[in-house]
Amino acid sequence: MRMSSSFATTPVPPYYTVIFSSQRSAGDKGYGAMAERMVELATQQPGFLGAESARGGDGFGITVSYWDSLEAIAAWKAHLEHQVAQAKGQAQWYAHYELRVAKVERAYGKSPD
Amino acid sequence: MRMSSSFATTPVPPYYTVIFSSQRSAGDKGYGAMAERMVELATQQPGFLGAESARGGDGFGITVSYWDSLEAIAAWKAHLEHQVAQAKGQAQWYAHYELRVAKVERAYGKSPD
Repeated sequence: MRMSSSFATTPVPPYYTVIFSSQRSAGDKGYGAMAERMVELATQQPGFLGAESARGGDGFGITVSYWDSLEAIAAWKAHLEHQVAQAKGQAQWYAHYELRVAKVERAYGKSPD
Repeated sequence: MRMSSSFATTPVPPYYTVIFSSQRSAGDKGYGAMAERMVELATQQPGFLGAESARGGDGFGITVSYWDSLEAIAAWKAHLEHQVAQAKGQAQWYAHYELRVAKVERAYGKSPD
């Protein structure tokens, strides 16, 4: 679930974010292909601003996606192909997950020289 | 930078979060020990609700911490020992990082049976 670059390039706040923390269950079971497809599909959605993702060797991962509105997040959640992936995620891919929707109010960083 | 459990147990929203995305530079240079100490110290701060962290083999990682107020986040940022760590992070440990402060408005998940 890697984007072309690790870091998302986001506009000046405010904007919205979905923080998805998950523990993968054992075995791929089609997860890798679906995860790639979901990233590809997400980037095509109206209001998508970017995403960042990391998963350790223990299978615990965090994916943070950024959106210009709560409506864009709701539309992505309701997307049919994404709904199929969500159902598979619940049933097969994730032993545990937590999802949080938040409004980004402030942002800063250090970019490479 | 692993907590005793991977998932943070957070209250019903609203609460605040700091999303810290980072690319580690090569070599440990004291990073591991300091990261552990910062987790230990963060958990002792007023208003700290929990944290989650994942880093892939490529050195790209995301740490999300949760707080009960913006004041608690500001106090943690200003903590003297944390300021030393921040300076080392900028100078030595991170090739690139992005930090976002956000207000969690909604949360749900799937816990193990």
